[in-house]
Amino acid sequence: MTHALPLLQVALDNHSLSDAYRTTRLIAPEVDIIEVGTILCVAEGVRAVRDLKALYPEKIVLADAKIADAGQILARMCFEAHADWITVICCADINTAKGALAVAKEYGGDVQIELTGFWTWEQAAAWRDAGIRQVVYHRSRDAQAAGAAWSDADINAVRRLADMGFNVTVTGGLALEDLPLFQGIPVHVFIAGRSIRDAADPVAAARQFKRTIQQLWGQEGTCCTAQSR
Amino acid sequence: MTHALPLLQVALDNHSLSDAYRTTRLIAPEVDIIEVGTILCVAEGVRAVRDLKALYPEKIVLADAKIADAGQILARMCFEAHADWITVICCADINTAKGALAVAKEYGGDVQIELTGFWTWEQAAAWRDAGIRQVVYHRSRDAQAAGAAWSDADINAVRRLADMGFNVTVTGGLALEDLPLFQGIPVHVFIAGRSIRDAADPVAAARQFKRTIQQLWGQEGTCCTAQSR
Repeated sequence: MTHALPLLQVALDNHSLSDAYRTTRLIAPEVDIIEVGTILCVAEGVRAVRDLKALYPEKIVLADAKIADAGQILARMCFEAHADWITVICCADINTAKGALAVAKEYGGDVQIELTGFWTWEQAAAWRDAGIRQVVYHRSRDAQAAGAAWSDADINAVRRLADMGFNVTVTGGLALEDLPLFQGIPVHVFIAGRSIRDAADPVAAARQFKRTIQQLWGQEGTCCTAQSR
Repeated sequence: MTHALPLLQVALDNHSLSDAYRTTRLIAPEVDIIEVGTILCVAEGVRAVRDLKALYPEKIVLADAKIADAGQILARMCFEAHADWITVICCADINTAKGALAVAKEYGGDVQIELTGFWTWEQAAAWRDAGIRQVVYHRSRDAQAAGAAWSDADINAVRRLADMGFNVTVTGGLALEDLPLFQGIPVHVFIAGRSIRDAADPVAAARQFKRTIQQLWGQEGTCCTAQSR
């Protein structure tokens, strides 16, 4: 194996912690990263981060707070609740990202820039210059609902971000059958939300994601032939 | 009086509801709009909105959730907690703003686009086309901390947004002495946060804001001479 496999992240976009637990009690052992989704953050506040990390201390817990301003204050709030990673929204002032990153370093955590909606390559260069190492390429949920599918433009943007040196997380209504679109790109994390949470058998759905990732990224060039069946 | 006076909004960027109450119990009667700031939203979740509206039902309660995606879901969550107005972040896909606005109309509420960080005039035109009536011109807290002051560019942008037909809220480390910068522009709302919350006498600070607004906008052309002393 010449490179790390993409990690699997489950997005908890539940409306309450108790509802989220119905998912995590089943699939927490199957995933690498537990995301406290923005919906759950708004529903329950930062205690959602604190309680999920307390339940699953061995997992990376990501607070998808989509911080837009007050980067240091909100970052500290999340890291004090034991988040491992937090998100800053792409339109935030560069000083917001810098402030969040400075606090992350105090706690040994990290910051992801959430590429939801409108952003530019000039901003991407500025994030790199500021020391940001992670971005989340996010096909908007509302754009999806309006009919936008994964496009060549999406795939090319993910490749370009990886080429810039970012660890790229890919998300946005990601289904199992979308994974081959990204083959050959060193994707850092794939996020599955509804495709795991709403599956008839969430454990089987999570394991199938891991298996497909192994098939596509496990050994370059041998994918999709005879392995791990 | 030829036009409505700008309203006064207090931003509650506290880290807990109990801390916010120390401000609201004093100054709620003095302000028009109570803002559940993003920091308080993250700290306490949507119950901050529910509890503040329950305490102050006669006030406009604004949930500064800075919605970036899942516009309908997050809007419904806020309006079910009895928010009057909610915010959508400027970089959100236009369908996020449209979704939030559709839900707002169900509840008789409204949506503000939060102009924090990076946005374009093309987006502003798209918001108008989508039926958005309110924007929040926001000097970034982190940009402020990095030394950016209110500039001619800020003032001109506020004027241009008002000319486009938006009801414009102005915020971002706004001090009493900044208000005259906006004289002659039909500003809809001024937000004061730390300049009221952290004042030695918050009631006196809020009243001074209202008095200065009356002086500057109360009667066009007669401002700053002999009235309301």
